[in-house]
Amino acid sequence: MPLSMYAASVPAFMQTLGALSAVLDKAAAHCAAKKIDPAALTTARLYPDMLMFTKQVQLACDFAKNAVGRLIGEPPKFPDEEKTFDELKARIAKTIDYIKSVKPADIDASADKDVTFPIGPDKTMTLPGAQYLVHAVLPNFYFHATTAYDILRHNGVEIGKMDFLGRR
Amino acid sequence: MPLSMYAASVPAFMQTLGALSAVLDKAAAHCAAKKIDPAALTTARLYPDMLMFTKQVQLACDFAKNAVGRLIGEPPKFPDEEKTFDELKARIAKTIDYIKSVKPADIDASADKDVTFPIGPDKTMTLPGAQYLVHAVLPNFYFHATTAYDILRHNGVEIGKMDFLGRR
Repeated sequence: MPLSMYAASVPAFMQTLGALSAVLDKAAAHCAAKKIDPAALTTARLYPDMLMFTKQVQLACDFAKNAVGRLIGEPPKFPDEEKTFDELKARIAKTIDYIKSVKPADIDASADKDVTFPIGPDKTMTLPGAQYLVHAVLPNFYFHATTAYDILRHNGVEIGKMDFLGRR
Repeated sequence: MPLSMYAASVPAFMQTLGALSAVLDKAAAHCAAKKIDPAALTTARLYPDMLMFTKQVQLACDFAKNAVGRLIGEPPKFPDEEKTFDELKARIAKTIDYIKSVKPADIDASADKDVTFPIGPDKTMTLPGAQYLVHAVLPNFYFHATTAYDILRHNGVEIGKMDFLGRR
């Protein structure tokens, strides 16, 4: 049996987003235990011109949501309004609800479908669905999920690689 | 056409490892321009108990090499001896040479093949090839490639997301 487009996308997103949600719980517990203002972590960056933690989480969610949406049609828009760990957890939950709601057969039918997506503020690129998923979505999705993890790790939250990987 | 195991693995590894090699050039140029000892970057970590930069690069290479090797048989062993940017570039080149050398049809035949792999120092897990690739290899591969990038970015090397993403 070959690899299906669905198997290579939705369950992978769910694994890593679920793990990220549990990591947010650990970050919130760390702030409570150490009497740290949670905003010190949610607004943290690894370098002044990198994106802050909240945006890394929002982007991980959006690469999953937009990939699924574009492969089958048009993705919903989720506004970037989250500021707290709880709000970010709700964003992840909303993203998981959406990607779980699509029919696997619709995703599986998208390998050869032309998908047009933004690259940067005013350019787009068009690729067949399979290449879009493998070469654009997955690297970006994991980039932002990892950088969110790295920001917390750099700030002393006690998490390890298994927290990043989560469960299938 | 469904997504092939080959299309979801080797070309993705090549894209990101090729990008990482170019990032190493930028890091070396940054050190030369700013009169920084390259060891200040190659041994850098985001937190004292995280792995240093060289190890992040070695692990990104190994997740690619070991995935390809296990999907078709037994992976070669590459010793972790690199200390300099040039040595790390050679490690990446050696990894790319290996993963380019395998027959796409052999990888494509591996979706349902049981693959046993280490998780932690003394445990193993067995998964069908497709699940091994999607749920174990890709998250780990991108985790280490991203963390290598994040370490350089955190230390002021002037790179951006396009440097991470590279070219298909």
